[in-house]
Amino acid sequence: MIKSNTKPKVVIIGGGTGSFVALTGLKKYPVDLTAIVSMMDSGGSSGRLRDELGVLPPGDVRQCLVALSTSSKLLRELFMYRFEEGDMKGHNFGNIFLSSLEKTTGSMEKAIREVGKILRIHGQVVPVTFEKADLCVDLMDGKTIIGETHIDEVEKKVNRAKIKRAFLKPEISANSNALKEIENADFIIIGPGDLYTSIIPNLLVNGVIKSLKRSRAQKIYVMNLMTKYGQTTHYTARDHILDLEQYLGKGTIDTILINTKHPSKETLSWYEDFDEQAVQDNISGLNYYVLRKDLLKNTILKKSPTDSLKRSIIRHDSAKLASAIMEIID
Amino acid sequence: MIKSNTKPKVVIIGGGTGSFVALTGLKKYPVDLTAIVSMMDSGGSSGRLRDELGVLPPGDVRQCLVALSTSSKLLRELFMYRFEEGDMKGHNFGNIFLSSLEKTTGSMEKAIREVGKILRIHGQVVPVTFEKADLCVDLMDGKTIIGETHIDEVEKKVNRAKIKRAFLKPEISANSNALKEIENADFIIIGPGDLYTSIIPNLLVNGVIKSLKRSRAQKIYVMNLMTKYGQTTHYTARDHILDLEQYLGKGTIDTILINTKHPSKETLSWYEDFDEQAVQDNISGLNYYVLRKDLLKNTILKKSPTDSLKRSIIRHDSAKLASAIMEIID
Repeated sequence: MIKSNTKPKVVIIGGGTGSFVALTGLKKYPVDLTAIVSMMDSGGSSGRLRDELGVLPPGDVRQCLVALSTSSKLLRELFMYRFEEGDMKGHNFGNIFLSSLEKTTGSMEKAIREVGKILRIHGQVVPVTFEKADLCVDLMDGKTIIGETHIDEVEKKVNRAKIKRAFLKPEISANSNALKEIENADFIIIGPGDLYTSIIPNLLVNGVIKSLKRSRAQKIYVMNLMTKYGQTTHYTARDHILDLEQYLGKGTIDTILINTKHPSKETLSWYEDFDEQAVQDNISGLNYYVLRKDLLKNTILKKSPTDSLKRSIIRHDSAKLASAIMEIID
Repeated sequence: MIKSNTKPKVVIIGGGTGSFVALTGLKKYPVDLTAIVSMMDSGGSSGRLRDELGVLPPGDVRQCLVALSTSSKLLRELFMYRFEEGDMKGHNFGNIFLSSLEKTTGSMEKAIREVGKILRIHGQVVPVTFEKADLCVDLMDGKTIIGETHIDEVEKKVNRAKIKRAFLKPEISANSNALKEIENADFIIIGPGDLYTSIIPNLLVNGVIKSLKRSRAQKIYVMNLMTKYGQTTHYTARDHILDLEQYLGKGTIDTILINTKHPSKETLSWYEDFDEQAVQDNISGLNYYVLRKDLLKNTILKKSPTDSLKRSIIRHDSAKLASAIMEIID
């Protein structure tokens, strides 16, 4: 599938921290990297910028740009810098940068190009769409939730029913460049990322699934490490796959990459407070090629004291993940 | 004074729009440019960042960096972009950039260096100090005004007494690099800029006047075009010089560069609403070399409709000003 003398074209579909981890690892390898990024973030700094300035949510794009950056540590830190006081409290500098450029140039595409130059990125970041839509989910109990942030942030005491289906409101078309990259890819990595708030939003954009099915790339899904309360509550690995098949159909994904290393009891107990567990590996017997590897990051990330949100501390290790992906690619 | 085969070292002392105009014109000539910038701005976006984030006021530094930039128009526009809505309303993007870098690096000097690289500046921008102080003035009626913005912004109906003396609270020391540049300069241009809020704040920093007197550079003062209500109300050219001599003593300035072209009646009548007039040229007989030139910008700048502040529309023309300065230098 790979043309000789050219670097394999690897497309990562996701957004958020999962894509950050995968790209950080993969940029060290001789691959031609493209990050396709979900644009439905409606919470936090991104959501405020979206609502107040009428721009596209910049947060996921910014994380991918920083992950692909080969510039100084200082600039990368600057783009991740979060204001802790004043008018900009809670805003992220990189988000403000992208939104200001979108306002100045009138285009998120140009904004990404300019920031990409400043951060000297290795690869490219391609929004799945330039159109605005809200992510919505219908629940099994007949309720509908509108807005990515309301799907993402749910307290344990809210006894939310299982998600029946996700959709975008309104329906929107894909960025043609994203479709082109999917169709020309040699390898497509879906994830890691939250199933309903990072992965599926990409698949809901008109044109994406058709291009994924048309693409001759090997398609690899990186299985989530942990369940996420409110969107994949008590999900096993098989549940993740069954939900994905709702959108992708059977046979679109070729390979599943799944972690074998158990997180520490101490960390798991922190998650248990949110009713979140390690995803149980029960995918044997499904018609996929499965690669099992230790993909777990050993360091436990400290939560920032000013961080009001719960953020996952169990993460994929960027080096281990990239190495496992390269094992498939090479 | 100029060493053969080296570019003349030209230092501009000021801050704000006047320095922007001078630097924009001079960067096109083969001179080694340094902008020494006042750091006492306490109003607007700069003042808010200063108060809320505990950083140095970035506005004047940002204007000088943009003036010296050789990067794309897009980046220069971005750094001048002012948010018109949302949390960042009234803030300038370049100011946020500098303040974020100061927070990330812990140093305004490093922040300037990084932004200078991104904007590919021709020359350098040197804050007169890295210490924090408020600009204060004692008035002839015994009152004291504290804070640059309160000195700068005064309504016509406030019948403010003449300024007796300006001082900084607390006393602060100069950036040693600023003193070095002053002492090693071939030419020092003082102004253009508001006398009490852009020029004199530089002279009040401990060490600056001593270095100016020690420097063998030719010192040129660019006379203001218009009086400014509340700080130079009804001042003639001679009044400007007399006030400067209070701080610099006689004989420090060598040359006065003064505009000869009258602004249009229409524009002057707009200023008359603020009780501001063209500065009357009555400096013959003072012991200075005087160069008289048409330095006036012909285009009348449109005021931004979102701009709540009164901003001068009569400006020096950057090309004419630079050409007049180069006539002295060559």
